[in-house]
Amino acid sequence: LRKMSSKIENDYLIQTKAFINGKWTETDDKFAVTNPSTGDTIREVTNCGVSDFNKAIEIAHDAFGTFRQTNVRERAQILDNIYNLMLENKQDLAKILTLENGKPYKDSLGEIVYSAMFFKWFAEEAPRIYGDIIPSAVSSDQKIFTIRQPLGVIGILTPWNFPSAMIARKLAPVIATGNTCVIKPAHETPLSALALGVIAEKAGLPAGVCNILPTNHTSEIGEYVCEHELVKKITFTGSTKIGQLLMGQSSKGKNIKKFSMELGGNAPYIVFKDADLDRALDGIIGCKFRQSGQTCICANRIFVHEDLYDEFSKRLVDKIDKTFKLGDGFQDGVTHGPLIHDKSIDKVASLVQDAKTKGADVLIGGSRASSLGPLFYQPTVLGNVTESMDIFYEEIFGPVAPLIKFKDVDEVIKRANDTDVGLAGYFYSQNISTIFDAAEKLNVGMVGVNTGEISEPAVPFGGVKNSGLGKEGSKYGIDDYTELKAIIVAP
Amino acid sequence: LRKMSSKIENDYLIQTKAFINGKWTETDDKFAVTNPSTGDTIREVTNCGVSDFNKAIEIAHDAFGTFRQTNVRERAQILDNIYNLMLENKQDLAKILTLENGKPYKDSLGEIVYSAMFFKWFAEEAPRIYGDIIPSAVSSDQKIFTIRQPLGVIGILTPWNFPSAMIARKLAPVIATGNTCVIKPAHETPLSALALGVIAEKAGLPAGVCNILPTNHTSEIGEYVCEHELVKKITFTGSTKIGQLLMGQSSKGKNIKKFSMELGGNAPYIVFKDADLDRALDGIIGCKFRQSGQTCICANRIFVHEDLYDEFSKRLVDKIDKTFKLGDGFQDGVTHGPLIHDKSIDKVASLVQDAKTKGADVLIGGSRASSLGPLFYQPTVLGNVTESMDIFYEEIFGPVAPLIKFKDVDEVIKRANDTDVGLAGYFYSQNISTIFDAAEKLNVGMVGVNTGEISEPAVPFGGVKNSGLGKEGSKYGIDDYTELKAIIVAP
Amino acid sequence: LRKMSSKIENDYLIQTKAFINGKWTETDDKFAVTNPSTGDTIREVTNCGVSDFNKAIEIAHDAFGTFRQTNVRERAQILDNIYNLMLENKQDLAKILTLENGKPYKDSLGEIVYSAMFFKWFAEEAPRIYGDIIPSAVSSDQKIFTIRQPLGVIGILTPWNFPSAMIARKLAPVIATGNTCVIKPAHETPLSALALGVIAEKAGLPAGVCNILPTNHTSEIGEYVCEHELVKKITFTGSTKIGQLLMGQSSKGKNIKKFSMELGGNAPYIVFKDADLDRALDGIIGCKFRQSGQTCICANRIFVHEDLYDEFSKRLVDKIDKTFKLGDGFQDGVTHGPLIHDKSIDKVASLVQDAKTKGADVLIGGSRASSLGPLFYQPTVLGNVTESMDIFYEEIFGPVAPLIKFKDVDEVIKRANDTDVGLAGYFYSQNISTIFDAAEKLNVGMVGVNTGEISEPAVPFGGVKNSGLGKEGSKYGIDDYTELKAIIVAP
Amino acid sequence: LRKMSSKIENDYLIQTKAFINGKWTETDDKFAVTNPSTGDTIREVTNCGVSDFNKAIEIAHDAFGTFRQTNVRERAQILDNIYNLMLENKQDLAKILTLENGKPYKDSLGEIVYSAMFFKWFAEEAPRIYGDIIPSAVSSDQKIFTIRQPLGVIGILTPWNFPSAMIARKLAPVIATGNTCVIKPAHETPLSALALGVIAEKAGLPAGVCNILPTNHTSEIGEYVCEHELVKKITFTGSTKIGQLLMGQSSKGKNIKKFSMELGGNAPYIVFKDADLDRALDGIIGCKFRQSGQTCICANRIFVHEDLYDEFSKRLVDKIDKTFKLGDGFQDGVTHGPLIHDKSIDKVASLVQDAKTKGADVLIGGSRASSLGPLFYQPTVLGNVTESMDIFYEEIFGPVAPLIKFKDVDEVIKRANDTDVGLAGYFYSQNISTIFDAAEKLNVGMVGVNTGEISEPAVPFGGVKNSGLGKEGSKYGIDDYTELKAIIVAP
Repeated sequence: LRKMSSKIENDYLIQTKAFINGKWTETDDKFAVTNPSTGDTIREVTNCGVSDFNKAIEIAHDAFGTFRQTNVRERAQILDNIYNLMLENKQDLAKILTLENGKPYKDSLGEIVYSAMFFKWFAEEAPRIYGDIIPSAVSSDQKIFTIRQPLGVIGILTPWNFPSAMIARKLAPVIATGNTCVIKPAHETPLSALALGVIAEKAGLPAGVCNILPTNHTSEIGEYVCEHELVKKITFTGSTKIGQLLMGQSSKGKNIKKFSMELGGNAPYIVFKDADLDRALDGIIGCKFRQSGQTCICANRIFVHEDLYDEFSKRLVDKIDKTFKLGDGFQDGVTHGPLIHDKSIDKVASLVQDAKTKGADVLIGGSRASSLGPLFYQPTVLGNVTESMDIFYEEIFGPVAPLIKFKDVDEVIKRANDTDVGLAGYFYSQNISTIFDAAEKLNVGMVGVNTGEISEPAVPFGGVKNSGLGKEGSKYGIDDYTELKAIIVAP
Repeated sequence: LRKMSSKIENDYLIQTKAFINGKWTETDDKFAVTNPSTGDTIREVTNCGVSDFNKAIEIAHDAFGTFRQTNVRERAQILDNIYNLMLENKQDLAKILTLENGKPYKDSLGEIVYSAMFFKWFAEEAPRIYGDIIPSAVSSDQKIFTIRQPLGVIGILTPWNFPSAMIARKLAPVIATGNTCVIKPAHETPLSALALGVIAEKAGLPAGVCNILPTNHTSEIGEYVCEHELVKKITFTGSTKIGQLLMGQSSKGKNIKKFSMELGGNAPYIVFKDADLDRALDGIIGCKFRQSGQTCICANRIFVHEDLYDEFSKRLVDKIDKTFKLGDGFQDGVTHGPLIHDKSIDKVASLVQDAKTKGADVLIGGSRASSLGPLFYQPTVLGNVTESMDIFYEEIFGPVAPLIKFKDVDEVIKRANDTDVGLAGYFYSQNISTIFDAAEKLNVGMVGVNTGEISEPAVPFGGVKNSGLGKEGSKYGIDDYTELKAIIVAP
Repeated sequence: LRKMSSKIENDYLIQTKAFINGKWTETDDKFAVTNPSTGDTIREVTNCGVSDFNKAIEIAHDAFGTFRQTNVRERAQILDNIYNLMLENKQDLAKILTLENGKPYKDSLGEIVYSAMFFKWFAEEAPRIYGDIIPSAVSSDQKIFTIRQPLGVIGILTPWNFPSAMIARKLAPVIATGNTCVIKPAHETPLSALALGVIAEKAGLPAGVCNILPTNHTSEIGEYVCEHELVKKITFTGSTKIGQLLMGQSSKGKNIKKFSMELGGNAPYIVFKDADLDRALDGIIGCKFRQSGQTCICANRIFVHEDLYDEFSKRLVDKIDKTFKLGDGFQDGVTHGPLIHDKSIDKVASLVQDAKTKGADVLIGGSRASSLGPLFYQPTVLGNVTESMDIFYEEIFGPVAPLIKFKDVDEVIKRANDTDVGLAGYFYSQNISTIFDAAEKLNVGMVGVNTGEISEPAVPFGGVKNSGLGKEGSKYGIDDYTELKAIIVAP
Repeated sequence: LRKMSSKIENDYLIQTKAFINGKWTETDDKFAVTNPSTGDTIREVTNCGVSDFNKAIEIAHDAFGTFRQTNVRERAQILDNIYNLMLENKQDLAKILTLENGKPYKDSLGEIVYSAMFFKWFAEEAPRIYGDIIPSAVSSDQKIFTIRQPLGVIGILTPWNFPSAMIARKLAPVIATGNTCVIKPAHETPLSALALGVIAEKAGLPAGVCNILPTNHTSEIGEYVCEHELVKKITFTGSTKIGQLLMGQSSKGKNIKKFSMELGGNAPYIVFKDADLDRALDGIIGCKFRQSGQTCICANRIFVHEDLYDEFSKRLVDKIDKTFKLGDGFQDGVTHGPLIHDKSIDKVASLVQDAKTKGADVLIGGSRASSLGPLFYQPTVLGNVTESMDIFYEEIFGPVAPLIKFKDVDEVIKRANDTDVGLAGYFYSQNISTIFDAAEKLNVGMVGVNTGEISEPAVPFGGVKNSGLGKEGSKYGIDDYTELKAIIVAP
């Protein structure tokens, strides 16, 4: 831990206790949060169990009774306050994030701003939770009204790859709509979550509305929250496997739950013959290697038209060689950090090994960067990847770019769709017909056309097929956090 | 079977074979469809098994490839044709309905028209499947587009109480959005479903888009359809118990399914102190006794303010006594028919027995009308019903009106909400404060204010709590049958 | 008048009396309606004066009192009936149209179907006149409701170039929203208007809702209607000059009127360097020469990139030469008819003369086709047209295609925008950047990209700059025919 | 002028020069702004003429070229900055307002906050200027897009009664949509307008986007701006007479202008038999006497049911007697200030005189309060007002409450509608039928039910009949400041 650069100005932003009912609560049980760059323990944090979660859920349920009554402008003001406080404290929040997640400080800053923007977006949405008046066919006097009402307690289960933003995208609509919540952050990255609790408290969020409970009893707690009758909805971001498990567990509970599920991806990135190659190369750098490839919308399969393939692969390797620097996220000039844990780097290594065995060429990288630490893996480009390799079908979640050659538009769309998930997809083309066609045919929830960056609060985020259910953010972000009630009035 | 009145003009509307890929397909296995009024077998129909369903699902999947490409106006025209054909054949369709379901012919006519109106509604919605253009914060050149795309094969599982309408409400949006489907009608009432197949065929619906498979292997087929990977969504109307079972089964399948679940209800019907008593009495007749109480939005608990209680109960009993006539649905003057099967009448009898034992007064009815047949139960009013009785918490699904006295607005809303389901609720009041307050606080998906009739295609139909997920009909009826895709274009 | 082909099956569709309060009313004064192909008088029709209009306006005002109360589904049904009746009678209606307007029978058929589609569109819109429920910042109890209410009597003033469709686009929303109207059709083409009256009557439209008064006292009546206090809105399609005049006259009346103004155009048609030339050539045929160029969205200036210019002009001339046939609209094979009257053909001739004088090349045509009749003008292509010529700035309204060479994207957009009107614009390009850029920068209300046909009911029709105010058709078509009322309720 | 309380902390908020192109520009010509409470001159301000306006319009036109390109989030940030700066400076801004307008300091504070909320509202709306994607009936490939584009230079003409808020409601959407503007504030109250210029400058609004030109050449400049070709839209708040004049003048210009016109009112305030009298009395205090009755939505005719009339009038008089204090707006305890100028107080005096002559009873007040200054008029209640008196039909714009007795619902609605304007209306009732009925039938743009306060940014503000055209604020507030463009793309 280099003290110099990672020093937190406002110490109180680092919390290690659970945030329940507006109070910071400790238990005897603790678990360590470690820095993936160094392996050092950052802090010991409270390890919540079933009874803590039960208590938090009951408190959230009670808080709902009054919070649901608050005026939209009160809630908007709280959200605006959170936004402003996050921006004011962005350096500190980014440092906490880099410490526990390992991503370069600059990326962490980006995430904090991105995260804050969700609170802004939903501050703006709260006063716009409109209902309808619908004409009735029964008579001109009779009216059909619809209103949107909050659900109650929402269970929020989030991953480690965006320790702040994945919570923000769920917590912001919870507050905007007058729900309350219990948050289980990833055990790898609870500190960013707890820091949000500090911010929310300062922003005036009433006690009990947002409860944040660190725990490493992940599967036990997941099941408990899913089966709890007072929890009305589960919003989860994570793997498809766990998502399905949670849905199954929920179906065993006493009540029918709503879900928002943002699950795994296997994004195609297609460089059509008429692509602007410079832009396609710029795009892939972020889209593939951001956070060392540990985002669910990362490009997972890079299809390049055969006429461009050689130039593209050569220039990509060159670019990586000249501009990437692997290391601790606080070090000057570092562009890419470590992976999050052993399981993760082992999977990456195994996928590369499998591809090599089956004929892929390692154009750059291709092995661990052990000298930097056990979780660092070299930025890697694989050539001549095919459907015979596991890497074609598995989500890599690491800094490996598999290049695939293609000839034909129809062919490549078919191959791109040959996966059971469908979160994001990207392609580069200047031609309106190709663009309309590919955008329509790619079986994914989000399509980037001539851009590798598709995330902003105005975009409805979410996937199709096994990539999930529901949309978060955007003008639709309120829908999944509310019930639509129809009121038929015959005066 | 009284031949005179139940004669079907257009014979071809009665089909007994499965409708798969636009063809009427027979298997060796058959099951009998009986008339609940008489116990007579109406027809033997094809009994489809797992392999038939697999075939139908695959066909629907293939048909999806081309049907999704059709223009919105083509689909609108087909839906309009179905609407017109249903109205042209409404007498025949109503007769088929009365034969297999037992409801009075006039009610059947009503259902057919109601059913047809869903096709009209979605004929109008098809050309209005709008997308958005959303400004991007990234740059003024970049645009975010959203479009709605169909899902693929939809599994439609429907009940016997509205053999035509419950299919219409699901099939119409399937067609409007360019999906395809496999329908498993209730085994008690497959004939109305198959008649819709005849209509759809005549209306020009392409082969394979709508497949209708009668079966009495209900639980086996339910599970099979839920687990089938090519089925993208399950839309089910039925009991909460089965709904949850299907959701659990679906979570074991290979893909993540979408759901529309319209499940059980336990509707409160509240007569506030300032209610217009005449209207409240008129309203309860339909709201409680329509189809002998066999609708999921039927009033299940009738709360009457203590000041009105005596007059209300007296006049209600009087009204039933003077205006109801139980019997075969084809007989002149018959207003109410039989229940659907043994299990159903047994449950009703048992609920009444339990209530009597615990102190309820039988104000009228209270026993089977066995002289008419084994499935007839007398229209019944129970006085002094309380929370100690099962009938307070159970969905009755029969012609029994439990009266409950109350004093206070807050009290009655709390009692009304004391149930784990929340489909419909009703109340009568002239006062704007009471109306706003009660409409907001009743935990149900649909509220009738000064009316007991809330169903029309313009209303978003659906419940909260354990009454289901999703909305059908209305301007929102397209949403659950489509995926929202975000397309981010950086020109 | 060739009897054979122009024979009207249903005689009653030809009416010559005014349609007031559901009755066919005659006055002594009459004026002749002539066939522009032959100069023959088709019929003498009633010539209404100020007192007739006053009576019709008062009747419409009275009818409004009850018609505004009708249910949305009643109005939808009437509109659907009109749609169906128009399709059933499309041959007759097309014949009437060709007789009085001169356009080829096939084009007339097209107009009738197009016209009918507006009634269909608004039949669908009527039940979708939604209001809002808006959260109030004052308190959570207080609600803001908005509803849309009809305006009252609408004055409809329409042109001769689409004698049926221009009325349909205005009358359909009038009916859908519960307004009433007084229609003054162009004196050149009152018969198609009156035929719509026959249809509306048969469709069940209540007396007084739609009044149709032929007159040739155009300017006097225009002023009278604009100043009449009972008229709440003027919707006019015609020239910019008259549109402004009517607005000025209205501002002298006792009440403040709403306007929908669809005025003149000067549409650019740009063929970019990367255009698909075949499609650009196909497009220009309809876009320029449909109805002999007598539509307000006709291409008026055809900008062709210098690299394509020679081929484009050559192939265009060739196409005209080989596929056009000028003549009476009932004659077999005729593709293009006469202009509407002397003033019109004189203007065309004078614009061509001016262009020739200033250096334009006549590539084909260029003079009157007097052998066919006094109102026929040859399909004409002018090369090397420049800003020095009147034809660059004036709306031609005739079959003359001025070709203009350009080099550069920015240059051509600037030149295209160099006009004080802005109704439609067209361009052909495959490139997404060019498309986004040009579509955004063209100062027109409607842009056709790779198509010369932009009219359908789903499109909001209307111009910017001096091409008018307001939008007709589309999801926005209801707005301009209703008042939005805000209702703030503090229960 | 009591120096103590009216001292402006941030001196620079008082500007006396014109704000053109981001610079404070002086001319030789000046005019005095006076304090209506004291008659003292507050400041001499620059008196702009035609050439200044021409220059400002041209500058705004140039600024439009770049401002229209700004990103929605840039514009949102500027608006948010203005909001925050206004709140930070609300005391100073309120003092300036009281100085020039005379309204009590507390009311001025209220106006500044209300004013600021429009900038907040439109900061939130800017990123929500959505377009549509509409399915085309032509083919499934073809798409119809709609986008909203800014208009260009907007002429803003505002009154003295809300010197800050009336500008805010127009300026905020101008900025949100990327338009630019030239503002002519009322000559009585230019200082609040110029203070907004200071705020906008500090908020980062680019030079030339908002130009503010004080002038007392009101009619000359009004005409000039209306006829100027570079001005695309006029938004005016003021009297119906002037509004119509401006529309007439505009129709003489070279271009067709858009209008937003918020004109005069004659609001009915109805106390139905079942009203909550306490609330109705509370409501009338603000609704009638706020700003001494000088608002366009002030109650102008107070209809009280005959059963409540005596009590209502007695208690109203009592309330005024006990709680009102007339005087200088900076004085402690003062609740009501002077009228704005001689013409105004003369009109009030004359209306009261006319009413008295024709039989009205003066229940309290009824004459000038000359001891306080020449512009003070006593809060007045008139009993037994009838249609024979001018005050029934004229907008009073002063602190006079005319009471009118009524018997019957239909009767009172008819009388309430007996006026050629229709801005606001109010009524008190608890009954849902009365509420629906009256809310629907009152011919006004805004209805307050059980409340006399209807203004907040979420409400679409605007009138019907001769009260104007267009809506400002709310989710509809963007529409009138943009053109809807349809783009039809055939890929």
